[in-house]
Amino acid sequence: MDHRLRLRRIGIDTYQEPVLYLRSDSHACRSEGFESRSRVKVMLDGKSLLATLNVVTGDLIGYDEAALSDYAWQQLGARAGEHITIAHPDPVVSESRLRAKVYGERLSEADMGAIVEDIVQGRYSELQIAAFITAAAGRGLDAGETLALTRAMIDTGERIQWPYPAVADKHGIGGLPGNRTTPIVVPIVAACGIPIPKTSSRAITSAAGTADTMETLTRVDLDVAHIRRVVERELGCLAWGGAVRLAPADDLLIRVERPLDFDSDAQVVASILAKKAAAGVTHLVIDMPVGPTAKVRSGAAMRSLANSLESVAGALGMQIQVVQTDGAQPVGRGVGPALEARDVLAVLQNTPGAPADLRERALALAGAVLELAGAAERGAGLGRARSVLQEGRAWRKFQSICEAQGGLRMPPRAPHTHVVLAAAAGRVAAFDNRRLGRLAKLAGAPRAPAAGLDLHARVGDAVVAGQPLFTLHAEAPGELAYALQYLAAQTGIVAVAPGQ
Amino acid sequence: MDHRLRLRRIGIDTYQEPVLYLRSDSHACRSEGFESRSRVKVMLDGKSLLATLNVVTGDLIGYDEAALSDYAWQQLGARAGEHITIAHPDPVVSESRLRAKVYGERLSEADMGAIVEDIVQGRYSELQIAAFITAAAGRGLDAGETLALTRAMIDTGERIQWPYPAVADKHGIGGLPGNRTTPIVVPIVAACGIPIPKTSSRAITSAAGTADTMETLTRVDLDVAHIRRVVERELGCLAWGGAVRLAPADDLLIRVERPLDFDSDAQVVASILAKKAAAGVTHLVIDMPVGPTAKVRSGAAMRSLANSLESVAGALGMQIQVVQTDGAQPVGRGVGPALEARDVLAVLQNTPGAPADLRERALALAGAVLELAGAAERGAGLGRARSVLQEGRAWRKFQSICEAQGGLRMPPRAPHTHVVLAAAAGRVAAFDNRRLGRLAKLAGAPRAPAAGLDLHARVGDAVVAGQPLFTLHAEAPGELAYALQYLAAQTGIVAVAPGQ
Repeated sequence: MDHRLRLRRIGIDTYQEPVLYLRSDSHACRSEGFESRSRVKVMLDGKSLLATLNVVTGDLIGYDEAALSDYAWQQLGARAGEHITIAHPDPVVSESRLRAKVYGERLSEADMGAIVEDIVQGRYSELQIAAFITAAAGRGLDAGETLALTRAMIDTGERIQWPYPAVADKHGIGGLPGNRTTPIVVPIVAACGIPIPKTSSRAITSAAGTADTMETLTRVDLDVAHIRRVVERELGCLAWGGAVRLAPADDLLIRVERPLDFDSDAQVVASILAKKAAAGVTHLVIDMPVGPTAKVRSGAAMRSLANSLESVAGALGMQIQVVQTDGAQPVGRGVGPALEARDVLAVLQNTPGAPADLRERALALAGAVLELAGAAERGAGLGRARSVLQEGRAWRKFQSICEAQGGLRMPPRAPHTHVVLAAAAGRVAAFDNRRLGRLAKLAGAPRAPAAGLDLHARVGDAVVAGQPLFTLHAEAPGELAYALQYLAAQTGIVAVAPGQ
Repeated sequence: MDHRLRLRRIGIDTYQEPVLYLRSDSHACRSEGFESRSRVKVMLDGKSLLATLNVVTGDLIGYDEAALSDYAWQQLGARAGEHITIAHPDPVVSESRLRAKVYGERLSEADMGAIVEDIVQGRYSELQIAAFITAAAGRGLDAGETLALTRAMIDTGERIQWPYPAVADKHGIGGLPGNRTTPIVVPIVAACGIPIPKTSSRAITSAAGTADTMETLTRVDLDVAHIRRVVERELGCLAWGGAVRLAPADDLLIRVERPLDFDSDAQVVASILAKKAAAGVTHLVIDMPVGPTAKVRSGAAMRSLANSLESVAGALGMQIQVVQTDGAQPVGRGVGPALEARDVLAVLQNTPGAPADLRERALALAGAVLELAGAAERGAGLGRARSVLQEGRAWRKFQSICEAQGGLRMPPRAPHTHVVLAAAAGRVAAFDNRRLGRLAKLAGAPRAPAAGLDLHARVGDAVVAGQPLFTLHAEAPGELAYALQYLAAQTGIVAVAPGQ
């Protein structure tokens, strides 16, 4: 049976979990047996979604009223006073396949398609999505399942077609703080006449994603029409992928993956390739940093992930090249959206003292893209990329791209900083990338764009006691204090070996 | 930094997930960088808990106010107008071990202890508990991890000591609808002079647990002192385990496991044995129904689970006997709390027509308990149990136990019923226990105690077209309709083979 209830706006933001609020003594609760945490189908003007019920035990809303969390309100395009209809949800058939996967069975292409479709349609609770992510974690999905997940992600979203014979792209596997090469690679490649319509993600488990960094410099929440206009004019763009419905399943998985702070090879492969395939990419270079505290920790892990990427890309008809890079320490100096943007500008503007490691990594990747896409002979890509940067053509192209996206602006600076000093003399032996990233996150990154940390030393540098190792940046004093509290409980985030 | 906020009661029931509500423009949110779904430490009068933040975007609460979900309110013993203090939570150290487990590493006893302690202390979000359950599902934990999980569950709760040399108990592995032997076994064993302080769980993924069934007959939410008084007087009790803090980690896992609808061998073993060890049990008989749609589906699965139970029980110094029983079809006639209670009463009262299968299973298990605990010679347990039942001593003991718990009452009857008829003549070939249980749950069981279904045929019975196969019972018309809608989409829940 369906029940009609008048909508009241109460303004509760539950992030992306749709929540319905009903009184415990309402007719709907009593006659349908709904209770807290029941899954309820909510319908309004032909739209519907599944919401999790929170029962109102006080007089927050009336007996014949219902309220929605802000996300559910937006999804349904609701207005106060309108009437929603609620009902028991239809049984979710793919749940039994999720259960089978958790117990160790293999998912067929049809199973995976059904699960991803149900996730995109909002039929899975966050607990169920957490179970799916956990079951897929590590090496939980085989090659066929990974391809099926990728195809299902492509099929459940929009696709962009381009009028170019080759469409290039570059993707960096996360886990290496400050590895912000994309905003340098894109203008170099575009300046060489190769289309590179780059859409980037926000940070998942790191202190900054390329979209977070670019957002401190220009507008990134572009829709498909806007991306198309930018690319038609400049051949390149630097947009956030989330405002486009390319592989929306990926974003739904990431919203649960993020608080859990883990992912899987299969999900990394599907996440990368589904977004690229949906964006019309034909030639893709992947930067894979390998190091003891990077996301990819060993040559074996690198080869396993590269094989999976190459196999799925091949099945999708995409040309791909995986470039192994050094993941031993952060790249550049800044870690955090605005601090990384500052390093990017220094490289693009050929500023004296610009981080050489960031520049050389970006040039190598740009060279690989130019060779893969046929804009440079084998072995000549790096040289071509370097001259485009040195001649200022990359910086001019970057400015043009930002203008087309909505205007170039300067990244913000944090009002609260704290300099962390070397306790004793010695030589910098190692950085713990994972804990450095966590420290930058505790200081507020990426939500607070100016937050993060600025490194003053590199592996191999000799330091004296009292010499600055890095500076913490925060937008709020509470966050600075929280990061310092974490830091006080840690040893070895920056390992300094004694002696000179 | 800590922030003080005045508490306002808004009356939102989020089930057992503690939720904190703060305004988005509050000082606490802005200076600490809290956002929706942040984990926040909430302190009041020396008590504290971790809550999930929901940000209030309207004017539901004031700028310097905070609200709590009903569960968090109760946990803190809050009163309106009191001031809470909030802060960033301390980093949860065991999270990195959970992540390692998800990626396939083994957990040490210390790791498992830390994870279970953090779960009991409310430091894990429900998403993280879902990840732990999923990683443990199937055969995710080895023997050592299972023992470590069991020990950690015992160590994080209360323990009951008894002044008896032997304390017996009986446990049934779920998955077989209507297998409600406990309320028959307990009075038989107690009548023979063996202490059997039974605490039972509510349903996890089934339509009724023993606690749900007993609650339709007497009070079951007894604290330890009350259980002790009942057992001192009657030697047996039939209480709900959840009102006692025996192995509370188990209940916290179950609250997430229930909506996910899956569990693991390791968790089943730890759940059973931790509760029993904490309750002071020394001699335990386990009823393990095996059948194609029971929880344990094959002899191999039975032996694997039995080995794990015996190995962990041995390490804990508990004597245990696993009894394999037939799991091919439901036991008795009723499925659902009150309908199963009716069958139990019929057996105890020696009513003509009482379900013989339920009686014989209960007698066999009671006999095994009597033998294991030394109250009957090997081979003589069944005979002794039968005479105790036939002489009415079991029924008198059951009545005394219920009186000691708070009085015996009669189970409720459902106002809405629907008889499901055989479509064609034939012979009943099989019942799908899992889908029968799901049907009873859709009709409202176990939350609606009178809901469920009543079987009118057994495997092997000949039926004619139009003959009743079973009757659906519901407390609400919406639930009856929902169950019928599910039924209409299914075939083979009761398989009838054509012909006579």
